[in-house]
Amino acid sequence: MGQRRDPRSQRCVVPANLMPMQTMTFEVHTGSAPAVADITGQCEQFARQAAGGGDGLLHVFVPHATAGLAVLELGSGSDSDLLSVLNELLPADDRWRHAHGSRGHGRSHVLPAFLRPDATVPVVGGRLALGTWQSVALVDLNVDNRDRQVRLSFLA
Amino acid sequence: MGQRRDPRSQRCVVPANLMPMQTMTFEVHTGSAPAVADITGQCEQFARQAAGGGDGLLHVFVPHATAGLAVLELGSGSDSDLLSVLNELLPADDRWRHAHGSRGHGRSHVLPAFLRPDATVPVVGGRLALGTWQSVALVDLNVDNRDRQVRLSFLA
Amino acid sequence: MGQRRDPRSQRCVVPANLMPMQTMTFEVHTGSAPAVADITGQCEQFARQAAGGGDGLLHVFVPHATAGLAVLELGSGSDSDLLSVLNELLPADDRWRHAHGSRGHGRSHVLPAFLRPDATVPVVGGRLALGTWQSVALVDLNVDNRDRQVRLSFLA
Repeated sequence: MGQRRDPRSQRCVVPANLMPMQTMTFEVHTGSAPAVADITGQCEQFARQAAGGGDGLLHVFVPHATAGLAVLELGSGSDSDLLSVLNELLPADDRWRHAHGSRGHGRSHVLPAFLRPDATVPVVGGRLALGTWQSVALVDLNVDNRDRQVRLSFLA
Repeated sequence: MGQRRDPRSQRCVVPANLMPMQTMTFEVHTGSAPAVADITGQCEQFARQAAGGGDGLLHVFVPHATAGLAVLELGSGSDSDLLSVLNELLPADDRWRHAHGSRGHGRSHVLPAFLRPDATVPVVGGRLALGTWQSVALVDLNVDNRDRQVRLSFLA
Repeated sequence: MGQRRDPRSQRCVVPANLMPMQTMTFEVHTGSAPAVADITGQCEQFARQAAGGGDGLLHVFVPHATAGLAVLELGSGSDSDLLSVLNELLPADDRWRHAHGSRGHGRSHVLPAFLRPDATVPVVGGRLALGTWQSVALVDLNVDNRDRQVRLSFLA
């Protein structure tokens, strides 16, 4: 079954799977235009430190009502392709009942129903088990909120 | 890294991270019209009891093929904004191959591909680590099924 | 609260909740046409073996940038209904900046933002706690990539 055991569990230290969940937060500057911000590096670094070479799940969470997460390839045009699809699905016009701030702001409140604020990635041998072309991104259409928080948690 | 340890692990009781997963189910009445039902209170109460002041992950799951979950702001118009977007993406007309029950029912079977039945929220210090404006909602377009079950699970 | 304890924790064997995460991968042949491939059987089998009759969370992950997961009813038309909605949301035409391979390939790179590569299902008493009509599916619009990997992980 490809089942793995944390090699540290043979030692006298507390293995990660017997430790309480490890969790931290960090800030991302998303600026004043719709953004697809790469946070893979922060995820990888936290997972490496928390897992201690073992296996577990990395949980990523955005505690904001107007931002979401996506796991996709970045840097080859798909980030702007995604923003184009979101512009059609959630146009920045006056249709929104939830109306305050910049024009079309209400669409940012619907975004998290589709691009959810939670994502979970397996950690194997202390590393994110992402595919070659996968990155973890924070997606933010909200031009009124330039700084975002992300919470990372590791459970083994 | 902002890493936290369950203060109870210093005591002689079994800390939450050494306990098996805790899980429960509850019912939600969604009625006979499309609904965005707030279930944040039930999530918060279960997390508080299960975590015992510690950290972990709350997993929310809807065991239905015609309902989904969303984490979004409620009560300021975004719930009806979401239903409007869903009416455009998944119209209640005769296009659906999966056709039975009320007109347009087939769209409810596609809904969970977009508004998924699973969501995970971090629990820190026994409380849901939601942002100020985030709520957990059960979304149900299905007018033929008035009562829904939700499963909550806590893993530390 | 309907809280359950692993009956094995009374025995002298290591209960699943004290074991490191168990994880494995398997291959799915999705062929050369858009596919909604049922992987419920593999999920159920792994969960049964990993849980040993106990409770936990099954995490499903697709390490590909052009495929996603959905939990929905299969075999009653909803799989082709889903592909129709995706054809409208993400048309297989020349609009995509990320352009290589078959025509419209760029849409497959946006797919995982909506049909995400991660899903989590509760395991109760060694079985997936899915609803009667729920199946776990791998969704693949990418006609250039005929074989896919899936990673399953179990945490208790």
